[in-house]
Amino acid sequence: MSYFRDNIEKLKGYEPGFQPKQLDVIKLNTNENPFPPSPKVMEKLGKTTAEQLRRYPDPVGNQFRQAAGELNGVTPEHIMCCNGGDDLLNLAFRAFCDENRPAAYPVPTYSLYPVLAKIQNCPVIEIPFDKEFNLPSKLASTNAALTIVCNPNAPSGTFISIDEIASLADEISSVLLVDEAYADYAEKNCAALVQDFDNVIILRSLSKGYSLAGLRFGYAIAQPELIDGLMKVKDSYNVDSLAIALATEAIKDQEYFKTNIQKIKAERTRLTESLRKIGFKIPNSFSNFVCAEYNGKSGSTIHEELKKRNIFVRYFPYPGLENKLRISVGLPEQDDKLIAALKEILAA
Amino acid sequence: MSYFRDNIEKLKGYEPGFQPKQLDVIKLNTNENPFPPSPKVMEKLGKTTAEQLRRYPDPVGNQFRQAAGELNGVTPEHIMCCNGGDDLLNLAFRAFCDENRPAAYPVPTYSLYPVLAKIQNCPVIEIPFDKEFNLPSKLASTNAALTIVCNPNAPSGTFISIDEIASLADEISSVLLVDEAYADYAEKNCAALVQDFDNVIILRSLSKGYSLAGLRFGYAIAQPELIDGLMKVKDSYNVDSLAIALATEAIKDQEYFKTNIQKIKAERTRLTESLRKIGFKIPNSFSNFVCAEYNGKSGSTIHEELKKRNIFVRYFPYPGLENKLRISVGLPEQDDKLIAALKEILAA
Repeated sequence: MSYFRDNIEKLKGYEPGFQPKQLDVIKLNTNENPFPPSPKVMEKLGKTTAEQLRRYPDPVGNQFRQAAGELNGVTPEHIMCCNGGDDLLNLAFRAFCDENRPAAYPVPTYSLYPVLAKIQNCPVIEIPFDKEFNLPSKLASTNAALTIVCNPNAPSGTFISIDEIASLADEISSVLLVDEAYADYAEKNCAALVQDFDNVIILRSLSKGYSLAGLRFGYAIAQPELIDGLMKVKDSYNVDSLAIALATEAIKDQEYFKTNIQKIKAERTRLTESLRKIGFKIPNSFSNFVCAEYNGKSGSTIHEELKKRNIFVRYFPYPGLENKLRISVGLPEQDDKLIAALKEILAA
Repeated sequence: MSYFRDNIEKLKGYEPGFQPKQLDVIKLNTNENPFPPSPKVMEKLGKTTAEQLRRYPDPVGNQFRQAAGELNGVTPEHIMCCNGGDDLLNLAFRAFCDENRPAAYPVPTYSLYPVLAKIQNCPVIEIPFDKEFNLPSKLASTNAALTIVCNPNAPSGTFISIDEIASLADEISSVLLVDEAYADYAEKNCAALVQDFDNVIILRSLSKGYSLAGLRFGYAIAQPELIDGLMKVKDSYNVDSLAIALATEAIKDQEYFKTNIQKIKAERTRLTESLRKIGFKIPNSFSNFVCAEYNGKSGSTIHEELKKRNIFVRYFPYPGLENKLRISVGLPEQDDKLIAALKEILAA
């Protein structure tokens, strides 16, 4: 007999990407930013006082809310701090979904969504993308309590226009969460939609664009009524004092941020072209990874062969993704080693 | 019309203790440790690398699990890292409770439990303590899916013997979570029970005993089967890299820890005696706070009068707690100022 609820007992938990302990590997499997965080973050870290650790944090992280509000052209009341973007996804499922209130999203997408649904024991309505990863029109008529669109989408890297997202928000009568974990690498984003739509929640992460995956920090942008409701569900002190202070420094240093983003976008173009040259099919990416399809060797085999060479990329054992690899954009020298290894593997 | 589930819409969120921004106040309202964290924690903090922030953390924090296992005489597989003790409480409600699977606990106790139950939409069975805060015998026969005993209990500070907790674990056929957030200040704790009982989960926090409230770090001790199930429900990266590293340093420095605990226990005795002398009734405390009852002026009035003098204590507007204040044990000079202020307020 199990002590757990049936849905939990049956659950296969989410499998996070492999995190090798060694530092001397080429790690292109979990979309970290290849550049270090802003020097201002490290400077702030050096000024941490014992008192900051001893005392409880500001429960809502107002210092960060102020800075994120300014950055996104909204008030601090439009912002909620989260322990990584996953914290917000978790909160959204618990606030909006249950056995009678389904979640809907296009697939393939971030594989955490169905896991969170199973934990919350809510039905899911998965609408397949077409081959070009266009927004499925059926998504507007699911009557789900929570609709999620990952944009740019993972693992495809593709982007849906703001106008299409706005139309979807307008058509549905429930909540639309736009998971913009990768929006820092796109040309546009949906933040402004929260001004017009009281049912839109934007998810942002500092893990990718700001090189702070180790710090666990993300945030929500939405109208204050939605933020207030989500606040009731979050843990009282969901983000720690250090994270609030360092995340605030990170988003204030826009110059450093923008410079790195430009470098990664340029390298993304170079990596895409190099991979296409050796036979991979890749949709244009608006994120810091590329979704590379190869027909001739399985994604699983290439993934294993790369691993033997201490190069880590991401392979998802899911329908429709068998021949695909998700490869983070690394530093030019890392990507060159990847290409060299791939040439060797494909020729074998 | 609300976008939220009914139970969330109706919910009044948990009210965390007031966190004043100023540093020059006497803050005895949220049970922080009056001493700074171990110098070894600060030393480790100074050695943080940009790479630790850039990369994702170890999803399960094995470094900490190893150290906490050694400290508690169990294997690392008996330990789960949490984003503060509240993270574990949240996980327990989601893993074990739902509309047909109630939670049970004696009251008054930590006021977060009913809030988590409302979020999870599970029934609660609240069994009143007697005046001496003995374990209610009825708790063994509720058939709840999750039974929680806060020990030492908040806000009473009282302690239930290990034998009584063991009997309860033996009698019930579901999970018993012993919330030991304050166990560092008691003479004994229930950690060894996980060896004999596969249904016991021990909750520990680094916020109080280890002066790390700002860092958000707690952990579970339980048999690996329970830990594995809870792991499936937790966020993939629920604790950050810095927190894992600093929490590990903190629990390794047992000498510093024990010295502070002894000082706080001695001051607890002195504070208790001083308060009793001016007319407060106080059960002997096994935590780092005292539960002080005064019959003559309401707890609310005394709380407000202290606040005017920049002295913060905790008042709970709940049945049975109207004449009580929860006062954290501070430094001797802080407690002296508290006593002087109370004399003034009670004489007015």
